[in-house]
Amino acid sequence: MKNLRLNLMISFVTLLVSTVLCAAQNRVEVNLPDIPGYQTLKCDFHIHTVFSDGGVWPTVRVQEAWLEGLDAIAMTDHLEYLPHSQDMEIDHNRSFEIAEPLAKQMGIVLIPGSEITRKMPPGHLNALFISNANLLEREDWMEACVEAHEQGAFVFWNHPGWKAQQPDTTLWWKEHTELLEKGILQGIEVYNHKEYYSEALEWAKDKKLTVMCNSDIHAPVHMTYGEQHRPMTLVFATDKSMGAIKQALKDRRTVAYYENELAGDRQYLSPLFFGSIKVKSGRVKLENRQIKKVQIHNSSDVDFHLKQRQPSIGFSGPEEIVLEAHRTVFVDLAGTSDEVKNMAKLRLFYEVTNMTMLSGNPLPVNLDIAN
Amino acid sequence: MKNLRLNLMISFVTLLVSTVLCAAQNRVEVNLPDIPGYQTLKCDFHIHTVFSDGGVWPTVRVQEAWLEGLDAIAMTDHLEYLPHSQDMEIDHNRSFEIAEPLAKQMGIVLIPGSEITRKMPPGHLNALFISNANLLEREDWMEACVEAHEQGAFVFWNHPGWKAQQPDTTLWWKEHTELLEKGILQGIEVYNHKEYYSEALEWAKDKKLTVMCNSDIHAPVHMTYGEQHRPMTLVFATDKSMGAIKQALKDRRTVAYYENELAGDRQYLSPLFFGSIKVKSGRVKLENRQIKKVQIHNSSDVDFHLKQRQPSIGFSGPEEIVLEAHRTVFVDLAGTSDEVKNMAKLRLFYEVTNMTMLSGNPLPVNLDIAN
Amino acid sequence: MKNLRLNLMISFVTLLVSTVLCAAQNRVEVNLPDIPGYQTLKCDFHIHTVFSDGGVWPTVRVQEAWLEGLDAIAMTDHLEYLPHSQDMEIDHNRSFEIAEPLAKQMGIVLIPGSEITRKMPPGHLNALFISNANLLEREDWMEACVEAHEQGAFVFWNHPGWKAQQPDTTLWWKEHTELLEKGILQGIEVYNHKEYYSEALEWAKDKKLTVMCNSDIHAPVHMTYGEQHRPMTLVFATDKSMGAIKQALKDRRTVAYYENELAGDRQYLSPLFFGSIKVKSGRVKLENRQIKKVQIHNSSDVDFHLKQRQPSIGFSGPEEIVLEAHRTVFVDLAGTSDEVKNMAKLRLFYEVTNMTMLSGNPLPVNLDIAN
Amino acid sequence: MKNLRLNLMISFVTLLVSTVLCAAQNRVEVNLPDIPGYQTLKCDFHIHTVFSDGGVWPTVRVQEAWLEGLDAIAMTDHLEYLPHSQDMEIDHNRSFEIAEPLAKQMGIVLIPGSEITRKMPPGHLNALFISNANLLEREDWMEACVEAHEQGAFVFWNHPGWKAQQPDTTLWWKEHTELLEKGILQGIEVYNHKEYYSEALEWAKDKKLTVMCNSDIHAPVHMTYGEQHRPMTLVFATDKSMGAIKQALKDRRTVAYYENELAGDRQYLSPLFFGSIKVKSGRVKLENRQIKKVQIHNSSDVDFHLKQRQPSIGFSGPEEIVLEAHRTVFVDLAGTSDEVKNMAKLRLFYEVTNMTMLSGNPLPVNLDIAN
Repeated sequence: MKNLRLNLMISFVTLLVSTVLCAAQNRVEVNLPDIPGYQTLKCDFHIHTVFSDGGVWPTVRVQEAWLEGLDAIAMTDHLEYLPHSQDMEIDHNRSFEIAEPLAKQMGIVLIPGSEITRKMPPGHLNALFISNANLLEREDWMEACVEAHEQGAFVFWNHPGWKAQQPDTTLWWKEHTELLEKGILQGIEVYNHKEYYSEALEWAKDKKLTVMCNSDIHAPVHMTYGEQHRPMTLVFATDKSMGAIKQALKDRRTVAYYENELAGDRQYLSPLFFGSIKVKSGRVKLENRQIKKVQIHNSSDVDFHLKQRQPSIGFSGPEEIVLEAHRTVFVDLAGTSDEVKNMAKLRLFYEVTNMTMLSGNPLPVNLDIAN
Repeated sequence: MKNLRLNLMISFVTLLVSTVLCAAQNRVEVNLPDIPGYQTLKCDFHIHTVFSDGGVWPTVRVQEAWLEGLDAIAMTDHLEYLPHSQDMEIDHNRSFEIAEPLAKQMGIVLIPGSEITRKMPPGHLNALFISNANLLEREDWMEACVEAHEQGAFVFWNHPGWKAQQPDTTLWWKEHTELLEKGILQGIEVYNHKEYYSEALEWAKDKKLTVMCNSDIHAPVHMTYGEQHRPMTLVFATDKSMGAIKQALKDRRTVAYYENELAGDRQYLSPLFFGSIKVKSGRVKLENRQIKKVQIHNSSDVDFHLKQRQPSIGFSGPEEIVLEAHRTVFVDLAGTSDEVKNMAKLRLFYEVTNMTMLSGNPLPVNLDIAN
Repeated sequence: MKNLRLNLMISFVTLLVSTVLCAAQNRVEVNLPDIPGYQTLKCDFHIHTVFSDGGVWPTVRVQEAWLEGLDAIAMTDHLEYLPHSQDMEIDHNRSFEIAEPLAKQMGIVLIPGSEITRKMPPGHLNALFISNANLLEREDWMEACVEAHEQGAFVFWNHPGWKAQQPDTTLWWKEHTELLEKGILQGIEVYNHKEYYSEALEWAKDKKLTVMCNSDIHAPVHMTYGEQHRPMTLVFATDKSMGAIKQALKDRRTVAYYENELAGDRQYLSPLFFGSIKVKSGRVKLENRQIKKVQIHNSSDVDFHLKQRQPSIGFSGPEEIVLEAHRTVFVDLAGTSDEVKNMAKLRLFYEVTNMTMLSGNPLPVNLDIAN
Repeated sequence: MKNLRLNLMISFVTLLVSTVLCAAQNRVEVNLPDIPGYQTLKCDFHIHTVFSDGGVWPTVRVQEAWLEGLDAIAMTDHLEYLPHSQDMEIDHNRSFEIAEPLAKQMGIVLIPGSEITRKMPPGHLNALFISNANLLEREDWMEACVEAHEQGAFVFWNHPGWKAQQPDTTLWWKEHTELLEKGILQGIEVYNHKEYYSEALEWAKDKKLTVMCNSDIHAPVHMTYGEQHRPMTLVFATDKSMGAIKQALKDRRTVAYYENELAGDRQYLSPLFFGSIKVKSGRVKLENRQIKKVQIHNSSDVDFHLKQRQPSIGFSGPEEIVLEAHRTVFVDLAGTSDEVKNMAKLRLFYEVTNMTMLSGNPLPVNLDIAN
């Protein structure tokens, strides 16, 4: 019977390859601008497969990532929670090994990883860029973390406010301080799946942790997110490579991208916003008691919600503007002083309510209109 | 370490269950009418999982089926083609066993099955309603078929015109005659995945085989079919149970439902059509040289394409009508004789070009409008 | 030249007719159930055309209504605000007269009307079912109202809380009391275009006014509402005729249908809800410490949002349920007592947060599950 | 009463303006690249309003154009066919005059025009850039054309193959030769509304006429085209101004853009194609018996359908490629010779089946992949 199986396998290789390719529809690019000096890579660093408690074979994760416009994913199956072990030979390196050839072929950066899965504290931790996941399978969680660290891992704390582990308050434990002081803990999930942890954003600022935003996907991605994009960590990297991503994570060059929300350091939020919008009108030549229309185009996938944070001088603009994704809108400017006609530049003062800085405040932006 | 694993598993049970349920979005019902005497069950009898060369865990197939509005599915992993065997302990009954509890909970009829996977002849055969798939693993394909038959299986021929096995012509081999004469072969796929085999429809008629239409799905269903429905075998059953489905298959009470095409016996196509449409206008009171509008509503998911097969007497109607799914359309009737005002009923003669009878011809339908 | 024009017109008649029909796409039915004793008619009683300040020719309003699934519309051009009068001969009956033949052909009930358009008080009033709009053109607004009343009109107050006329508070003026006491004022818009007036709902209850919900459409309908349905007044009528609609309005048999909100008398909201949903499971046979799943299907276009208003006895159900339009959902019931297995019926106590009664409270509903 | 009307008008001005602006949703840009030396302007030169037999007020045409991403439109009401003349004072310049202020405000180039509407020959002709439409109202059609010509008009032949006027064959009449020889006739509609005239494309080539593609819209645009874009004439202009458009039309710098079809001179089709697509992979380093994947992205709104017109040398690529709008696809290259690894550039030979040159043939394109 083994021979029959082997013989059959050979003739089926062609079939399998073509099945994989037929299955793949076309890739939807995620439309977000690169920023000065860096490429904006779309990444998901928390993913499960059948090798722990996920619902899909590892190669499916690569196909999904390609179709959705991602640049990089990490395979992070649980080390300790293995509900399929009756039917599977669990080797913690296999989900990465199986997916890697397809990832290479499809141009997806595939990052080896593992989820160290314990009760709180310290809860669940992802270790990325590891060289041998099997060595992380330890009785003592700190030993597992140290092993990961010695393999050169970037370690981050998953879903710190997950109700199942932190039912009442999202607490920072002394164990996390210990991990931080040892230089092991370097990042934290501000968003996981469909949850947001405001405390995590604060800790990212205060403790200099990298902001992470990941799917923690178990089911096929469309079953979970439908037509919406999954949570992504935007990584600002010098190129699309594993090394550049690792360096960017260590340097905290990330922004969380969750549904229509962006959260992270102001130095990355600002160029994302200004790289997305464009004032399409020429000089408006506004005078007192006139109304002039300005067209603004948003070429990104994000709807930007702008709220006036202080009035303009010499003229007035709308209190709120919604710059819808891939749309052009009109903004009405009304001259309210004689001086306005002598102003070369009309400045509008807004904040983007769906772009949150590490401080927890919305991103302030100034729009300048040539006059 | 084993102890750690076990301890962890207990605390995770709640997590797993809720993950499964969270993942599930709402179910989209397939809108096709029941027909007199029977429920119209939406079924897919050809499905793969990680237990052969599929990309998903067996429970995912149940969730997908529920979300898509299916009533019944069969687990039909290959017996001989097992590319995951390096990582999995292959027991051919496991994909059914793993999925069954969830299927029961979700109200999906789950049918145990296997795909006997050989080169042509006889090609690939699915055996449904088997009691032990492992006993079908035989060197000799006929022995496997006989074993299935002795287990009470309903056996059908998969993708008979698959180019990889029948590159030039879709042939019927003496091996199939043998299977037919032994009473083993009872059905044939007229549609498989994205292919149609006109010869199979002819054989279904001539050799009294049950018409099948299945997905042969390997990847997650949305990755393959997007927003389209997968190929389905419509089964006309006395109730929604495994027994009733088996009886319906043996009695050839099926219709293929592929994209916007329906194919099968006229006795099932007719009530599907007439159960879907409704003339919404009252008496039109058409007279000579008048034009009157009739509204027709289609409550099904199918767009029906109607083509006039002969002119009406005393009046004229449109040469073509498209009755779009879930829409109401106007049909203009023009009086062309003085007699028309005395006719109690205006009859229009069409054929439905996307409903194909076993003969290969489109379904003829007459529309009667009260006058 | 006139002769040339006339000659050309004849040869163009065919062209015009076919243009009108080509333009029409298929009709989307509004899926809301009829209720015991009445048909549920979908109506818009506030519509403008080029004959006042609207953007479209009257026949376009009929085509739009048909395409959108409406049963009846009223033509209610302003009597006093006529910005197109430089280019048009304004006869206030013409928008109705021009649209009527097409309405008849398409099966849309077309109601003659006018908008009496004054500053507050009394603001804007619509008069429906009038026989001659031109006679309503009076210097004195009360005279116009009396004339309408004498023509048998049903008169209602439009957008009572419109900021342009009631900038701070939505006030009821003595002029409205006068109109009410004279039996002229019989209805009030609770919704107009994209606004909601909670005071109007209260007045509808206290002063026995008919609840109205209208579009006040000026632009082409899709330019204003996109893929969303326009605001509609649901009218519960004995048949689809002008007389039955008039009687229903006088009898206050209406419900407002705005986006995903329904507002009106409990006696109409209840059958709309229960006529839309169906428990699809059989007896659940729930016992203590068990969880059983119940499937509920919603066949309407409305997403119903249910919130538990009191706990069940002997078992527990979800605190919130969303019954999405045209979807089936699972509801989990958990046995919490030994008695539950002896209960023939499991009762769940909810309120529908998007169905508002005249009191301003959400509709309470009880769901009974066979056990 | 007149006074009442006037008084009311003043207070309503604010209302009207805000109604117009509220109605406007956001603008969807048409994604097609500019070409070297020119902007690609999206234009519709054949539009009707209530001032002839259209269904909307002139300003609505401007709003529709802005929302749909158009840059320029022409108002071309019929001079002779005036079915609304009972209710309207027809001045043939009014549809332009009424729409012009809004067009200016919204940044839409509005072109004055008229449709000279006669039986065949010469059928219907549009005159653009005229200074006084009323002077074109002549008993004799040639006089009307000469008057237009003297006003500096660009004149083109509308829907030359319209079945109502050319039921059997699409003929070129001596009258058209006369118009051509007099230098009056300069363009021809290759597409009108939902029709295509292959003869017109041939004549555009042979008689050096400008290719036109227009909507001839009568109803509100969404009622006719739904979510699809209307037929557009792409104009390659030095800037977005009436003068530049006129010059471009005279210089025949246009391409027809109908549904997913583009037709016109090869010198404009080629840069449209190559400006839309981008090979995203680096050097493939293909060797004999290898398969390498190349990613190609299409940033335009058009799905490009590529068909191999001759095999490549030393390697093979797919026979067909569909480059879907705003998607990235994989193209597999297979090395079939030892020489391939020494080739710096891999050339693929395709034709784009939905880009038709004036000759009627599909556009040939070569794709070069760095090796």
